[in-house]
Amino acid sequence: MPEANPYIKQYLMAAGPTPIPPKVSQIQAEPILYHRAPAFVAIYARVLDRLKTVFQTQNEVLTFSASGSGGMESAVANLVKPGTKVLVASCGKFGERWAELAEAYGADLVHWDAGWGNRVEPSELEQKLSENPGIEVVYTTLSETSTGVVNDVQALTEVVHNAGALIAVDAVSGLGAVPLRQDDWGVDVVAAGSQKALMCPPGLGFASPNQAALDRAAETAGQGRYYFDWQKTLKGQKKDPPDSPFTPAVPIFMALDVALGMIEDEGLENVFERHRLLGRATRAAVKALDLEIFGPEDENSNVVTAVKLPESIDGAKVPKIMRDTYGITIAGGQNQLKGKIARIAHTGYFGAFDILTTVAGFEMALRELGHDVELGSGVGAAQAVFLEAGVPAGAPA
Amino acid sequence: MPEANPYIKQYLMAAGPTPIPPKVSQIQAEPILYHRAPAFVAIYARVLDRLKTVFQTQNEVLTFSASGSGGMESAVANLVKPGTKVLVASCGKFGERWAELAEAYGADLVHWDAGWGNRVEPSELEQKLSENPGIEVVYTTLSETSTGVVNDVQALTEVVHNAGALIAVDAVSGLGAVPLRQDDWGVDVVAAGSQKALMCPPGLGFASPNQAALDRAAETAGQGRYYFDWQKTLKGQKKDPPDSPFTPAVPIFMALDVALGMIEDEGLENVFERHRLLGRATRAAVKALDLEIFGPEDENSNVVTAVKLPESIDGAKVPKIMRDTYGITIAGGQNQLKGKIARIAHTGYFGAFDILTTVAGFEMALRELGHDVELGSGVGAAQAVFLEAGVPAGAPA
Repeated sequence: MPEANPYIKQYLMAAGPTPIPPKVSQIQAEPILYHRAPAFVAIYARVLDRLKTVFQTQNEVLTFSASGSGGMESAVANLVKPGTKVLVASCGKFGERWAELAEAYGADLVHWDAGWGNRVEPSELEQKLSENPGIEVVYTTLSETSTGVVNDVQALTEVVHNAGALIAVDAVSGLGAVPLRQDDWGVDVVAAGSQKALMCPPGLGFASPNQAALDRAAETAGQGRYYFDWQKTLKGQKKDPPDSPFTPAVPIFMALDVALGMIEDEGLENVFERHRLLGRATRAAVKALDLEIFGPEDENSNVVTAVKLPESIDGAKVPKIMRDTYGITIAGGQNQLKGKIARIAHTGYFGAFDILTTVAGFEMALRELGHDVELGSGVGAAQAVFLEAGVPAGAPA
Repeated sequence: MPEANPYIKQYLMAAGPTPIPPKVSQIQAEPILYHRAPAFVAIYARVLDRLKTVFQTQNEVLTFSASGSGGMESAVANLVKPGTKVLVASCGKFGERWAELAEAYGADLVHWDAGWGNRVEPSELEQKLSENPGIEVVYTTLSETSTGVVNDVQALTEVVHNAGALIAVDAVSGLGAVPLRQDDWGVDVVAAGSQKALMCPPGLGFASPNQAALDRAAETAGQGRYYFDWQKTLKGQKKDPPDSPFTPAVPIFMALDVALGMIEDEGLENVFERHRLLGRATRAAVKALDLEIFGPEDENSNVVTAVKLPESIDGAKVPKIMRDTYGITIAGGQNQLKGKIARIAHTGYFGAFDILTTVAGFEMALRELGHDVELGSGVGAAQAVFLEAGVPAGAPA
């Protein structure tokens, strides 16, 4: 096996932080702006407006200088008081974060783990809710980054509302990659972050409560929240001109403004279509390599593709070889999936040739680890998908 | 009065966000790093190490992707449970934030407001503590940005410890500008942020609990905290290699690494000396203009100088004219001080000629508003201080 090479060209192909378009990175090098100066206020107001487009909502999208987990925490801190009956429907590592958060805030928690690699099935959720009457809030996940599974949030929302509860969805890794039509579907809260399909650095978390969620938050006021208090940020954002209650992470807002402009230019539906194509090509490559997709093989799982690694090899070495000797950063499995899967990302600033690069490196790593693989076969299958679609699935310049 | 000119060269002279050295800004334009890749982990580890130098502590400095207020919130969320007897000793807007936080977390709060523009006097704090037995935690402020006052944290710590309580200090605007020798003085928690004297963009908050504070936090576990939980972050930072429990704001860590390297190169004591000189020159300029310093005229108030504006003019127009027509951003007064003071910052990446620029623009704005001022007199007085000191008080390149 070759030595690690510190001089090798780097290709970031991870599911978060994801690659960032140069013009998004570069705006951060501009001289910093005072957060109450008109030049920044204009950016801030435009970002708040553009976020609504991506969230597909008329709700105010509340922004927090924090990781995506900060946006998630706000959805617990504002809806849960000690003893609130909460159901967390998880199917992987990030779903489990909801359970940890709910416990931290003293919820009376029912944690239903649908299993890593499974979907949260609406019919099963319906049953869980009927078995556990009085649930007030359900927390679940749009795209479970740890497994590649994408849940049917529209159907889950209907089930939750039929049971008289609110639903809060972690869309950190899915927002802007796969459809989540908050207002059309009636989702009560969507939590997200800046560092996935929004093509920005980590550092901003979001939550977009609807009126029902805000009303509930009013009932739980004074429960030990300040920085993540929805009313505090809402009040600031609704001022004219809008004003963040805490000094905002100025360069990341500047970056987000550029990135959201790129999404606007490409068109949100085209962005979704690009992710569909990237996901399809990746799955075709995996099949051509005679490997299995981890989890349900799903036309909607277009954020990250998890691949079951051959049991004959030391799977933990796949991302290590790719990173150390080819300069390609992908993620392996987390927790109980460590060494068992590799995760090929296609979230945000990804085009066709990023997938081909990743697949090519993946093939080479498998070969180095002694797995019998026909070099170029996965790449070829993905190429065929791209050619057939008639577009090179390029992310915008 | 001239019209606002959108094409004018900009000079950011505010107390936060403060100006950022170009090489600190520019590192953010580098391609983003995966937060668990060796290249980032090396930066993260170095930042954690360098922060200890600036905090003058052997404690682990816990880092949160958040505003400085997030660091402050952590010092309340981890030390206060409902009913905890807390005393907040405030002397301005940011001290009042401690009181809001303590209330949000259900503290049994004694809020002693020493008055905007006053110091928190150790002898008075001693009296307050004797009048209110059983106080468990005292919250106060190193540098009150809203008024320019710098408190004697060493003496306050002694008073608090004699009363058997812990002390947590908001050093958001003072850390790295004026001495705060956490370990020598025995301060239990110092909270800070990236966007003031640390010469970085906003987006990182810090807290450096000592063992006594960590022990107390263990007793308040499960009180509704997750993102700001000290143990969670401590556990991650103590891993080998260190690992943030939440995706960190990668570019701001990269920026902080560069900025802390600059502070290291200049030497922390030299940095303090530079701020002393900048503060002295600013006060000399104010006096030469026949204006008064707001608050005690203090050899230690070297973060921001608040100037009482002549009552004959519309004071709110001073920062407005300076920004709109000269491109110089300074801050006016907040809340009850709106229109009554102007705040001249010297926090972080400031050199002699930044003070001269600010004073020159300030003189011109006063003249435009009809106040009788001898142009150049404030500038001249500051120049004399710089020449006498024999150094141009330049910030490092």
